Amino acid sequence: MGTLLGLGAVLAYHDHRCRAAEKSPHIYTREEVRSHSSPETRIWVTLGCEVFDVTEFVDLHPGGPSKLMLAAGGPLEPFWALYAVHDQPHVREILAQYKVGELSPEDTAPSTVKTSDPYADDPVRHPALKVNSQRPFNAEPPPELLTENYITPNPIFFTRNHLPVPNLDPETYRLHVVGPPGGQSLCLSLDDLYQFPKHEITVTLQCAGNRRSEMTRIKEVKGLEWNTGAISTAHWAGARLCDVLAKAGHQLCGTEAHVCFEGLDSDPTGTAYGASIPLARAMDPEAEVLLAYEMNGQPLPRDHGFPVRVVVPGVVGARHVKWLGKVSVEPEESYSHWQRRDYKGFSPSVDWDIVDFDSAPSIQELPVQSAITEPKDGETVQSGEVTIKGYAWSGGGRAVVRVDVSLDGGLTWQVAELDGEEQRPRKAWAWRLWQLQAPVPAGKKELNIVCKAVDDSYNVQPDTVAPIWNLRGVLSNAWHRVHVHVTP
Amino acid sequence: MGTLLGLGAVLAYHDHRCRAAEKSPHIYTREEVRSHSSPETRIWVTLGCEVFDVTEFVDLHPGGPSKLMLAAGGPLEPFWALYAVHDQPHVREILAQYKVGELSPEDTAPSTVKTSDPYADDPVRHPALKVNSQRPFNAEPPPELLTENYITPNPIFFTRNHLPVPNLDPETYRLHVVGPPGGQSLCLSLDDLYQFPKHEITVTLQCAGNRRSEMTRIKEVKGLEWNTGAISTAHWAGARLCDVLAKAGHQLCGTEAHVCFEGLDSDPTGTAYGASIPLARAMDPEAEVLLAYEMNGQPLPRDHGFPVRVVVPGVVGARHVKWLGKVSVEPEESYSHWQRRDYKGFSPSVDWDIVDFDSAPSIQELPVQSAITEPKDGETVQSGEVTIKGYAWSGGGRAVVRVDVSLDGGLTWQVAELDGEEQRPRKAWAWRLWQLQAPVPAGKKELNIVCKAVDDSYNVQPDTVAPIWNLRGVLSNAWHRVHVHVTP
Repeated sequence: MGTLLGLGAVLAYHDHRCRAAEKSPHIYTREEVRSHSSPETRIWVTLGCEVFDVTEFVDLHPGGPSKLMLAAGGPLEPFWALYAVHDQPHVREILAQYKVGELSPEDTAPSTVKTSDPYADDPVRHPALKVNSQRPFNAEPPPELLTENYITPNPIFFTRNHLPVPNLDPETYRLHVVGPPGGQSLCLSLDDLYQFPKHEITVTLQCAGNRRSEMTRIKEVKGLEWNTGAISTAHWAGARLCDVLAKAGHQLCGTEAHVCFEGLDSDPTGTAYGASIPLARAMDPEAEVLLAYEMNGQPLPRDHGFPVRVVVPGVVGARHVKWLGKVSVEPEESYSHWQRRDYKGFSPSVDWDIVDFDSAPSIQELPVQSAITEPKDGETVQSGEVTIKGYAWSGGGRAVVRVDVSLDGGLTWQVAELDGEEQRPRKAWAWRLWQLQAPVPAGKKELNIVCKAVDDSYNVQPDTVAPIWNLRGVLSNAWHRVHVHVTP
Repeated sequence: MGTLLGLGAVLAYHDHRCRAAEKSPHIYTREEVRSHSSPETRIWVTLGCEVFDVTEFVDLHPGGPSKLMLAAGGPLEPFWALYAVHDQPHVREILAQYKVGELSPEDTAPSTVKTSDPYADDPVRHPALKVNSQRPFNAEPPPELLTENYITPNPIFFTRNHLPVPNLDPETYRLHVVGPPGGQSLCLSLDDLYQFPKHEITVTLQCAGNRRSEMTRIKEVKGLEWNTGAISTAHWAGARLCDVLAKAGHQLCGTEAHVCFEGLDSDPTGTAYGASIPLARAMDPEAEVLLAYEMNGQPLPRDHGFPVRVVVPGVVGARHVKWLGKVSVEPEESYSHWQRRDYKGFSPSVDWDIVDFDSAPSIQELPVQSAITEPKDGETVQSGEVTIKGYAWSGGGRAVVRVDVSLDGGLTWQVAELDGEEQRPRKAWAWRLWQLQAPVPAGKKELNIVCKAVDDSYNVQPDTVAPIWNLRGVLSNAWHRVHVHVTP
């Protein structure tokens, strides 16, 4: 089961063995288990080779029904690995009451893959991820897991791949750092990178397309249908890019320059993913740009750039190049498609017939953002009191200073409580989680819940989506709105 | 007349003399001239001691009727000083046709002032300024003058005073720079300041209360009723604060610290104006914080801090302390009222009964801003084509990358043309002026013109004012809206 969790995960449930069945148990295939994933079909889960019908337990689940439902029709292990609280005898005793049978023994072998498929070697992913695209793999954690932890567990960190995941050998991996004109280039092994001072920071990454699905509702856009989950937070460790560039002989120059990154992922024509950031940011020790080789204390998972990726705090995910192969300093931005013909913002009036990509700057720092993760749109909440949870973040190291929440669509506001780590001035690289416990106004049958954040430059989110709509569906940071029903 | 223009202005009209009248001319008092300031009463102006009735000329004025109307009932000299194009024989010939008389000779003497008034010694101001408060003096240029020039002429630069204007002698002026613990303090004369490398930058200053009047329309706020003109741009020169602090022995420390400024303006109890900025900004040469002694090539006008003021590019006007007397480095922000009990942003839900000033950060960098300066609200525009002009700016050195303009209240948008100087990356300290020539849709009887700007972090302005309303009426940066009628 360990591969299900990716390299960074720990299998929490490890002492389980199939006991010799007292009587001959019912035998089910995984396919049969999968078909039991709703109250109507009953809710089955597996642990090891045992099958359980937990329909009656769902509403009793201490973490809430929605969390258990994420595992409906499949194995519990990936979720128990995230939440180690489950690995206790009394939990297994509860579960044992619901046993209905066992898995067919031949159903545990991994399925064979077609080797002609360039994605055949992609890693196995966590089942909780909501997949927006399988090839290339793009997926986000469900909202109710996203803000369960300040640090997003590696297996459910949102994944944004542009190409198949390369399978790199850490022994032979080399990072090519092009030297300045007349200087010497570096060819760094992982061990070489470990020799630089190890720098650790907590950084939130957000895809430019986070919350794109809200723009699609206004008018069609080109891009993956991200919900609110194309954002996650990890504790990263690695060498500082400024140290590596200095070692290669680079220094800040008077003229504008750019550090270009190339990934080792490539399409069938050999074109690699690429992006760039301004040299001034790369060389600034205070900007803390990393060549990261650890994510939450583990080697990077393959989906997140093993063995080395760039982490550019405060900057759009697209510049955090994974599977990093090459670093160079150039007078111009990267000529990559993803730097020059994508990841830029335009006026709502611009369509594909008239768009001029050279007229807009590439997205670097992102604007202030927030979203509600609980309750979910369309959910029914109890009258009395409602708990609202979410995240808020801003680009460029700007700290979130306040989140306002409305229950009436924006007419009146309450200030949410900010959780999470205290933020360093000018280096607020990570999000704030927030929550609000608010009385449900008596007699209300529904609530239009809205959130908006303010950062320390006092930038705010725009009220509505349509006026920031753009043909690529990026930079979707209008007030987040969730409509819920109230039980009578 | 020269004093009318402030120290920085040049009197353009200088060879005018009253000719011996051919016949005995009509003699008028200034008071009488002042009463002729509208088409109904006829429009009079003066130049030197001559009085002109320019009612018939207003619509022929090449700069537009609204510009000439700014001088209605008063002298032309302050406006001719701003627009030197007037200082030509053929302009005076045109004017001569409209002569109706001369000013009473005893009416040129300056009026006497009450010496018990602490504001009695305030400088004489330019008549074009729209005064929001006389004591202390707070005034803004009218919108149609504001965007006439990329650099705002000194006499009409918005003025935000908190106290009477001190009258300082440049010979005896001293700036006290407190040294680090155990170190030596500096006591700098103007000549000492001139010894530091002279640094020159173009910087836009904006009051936190700019556009407050739009918040007042939602609900009462405490503060001056600024329209869109509490923002102006000048070319500043002075010593870099980082050089002066370094000379005093200060350096960046690991812990957070603040540079506190004290003005030489003070109230009757001796309390001076004060404010602070983070030490990290003060010490960063790239942040270009100035101790400015020149404004647009002239010594600072008295209203703008003569002889020395702070200029903190990208930061709210309140930190640009004028008539600077003292600089110190402290572990905490300035204890000044204006740092701790003012110039902070709050949720719309916070009123004076519950406000906790310690709960919000002091405003430093300002959010992205834009406004329409032409046409004016309520104006009637010609059918056919309309020209829309305005300004856009963002705090923190973030460049304005786009201004969207709508003629239909925000349903559809057009991209405006950005004028003004090219902006340096991360150091876009000055505004962009913009304009749009757009066809007026056929049959439209009115237009709801709206503008919104985007900065290079892709932050945008919020759609509406109410959700950013706050009890002090600061940070008013919603879309700017102007309603105009169209001639049939």
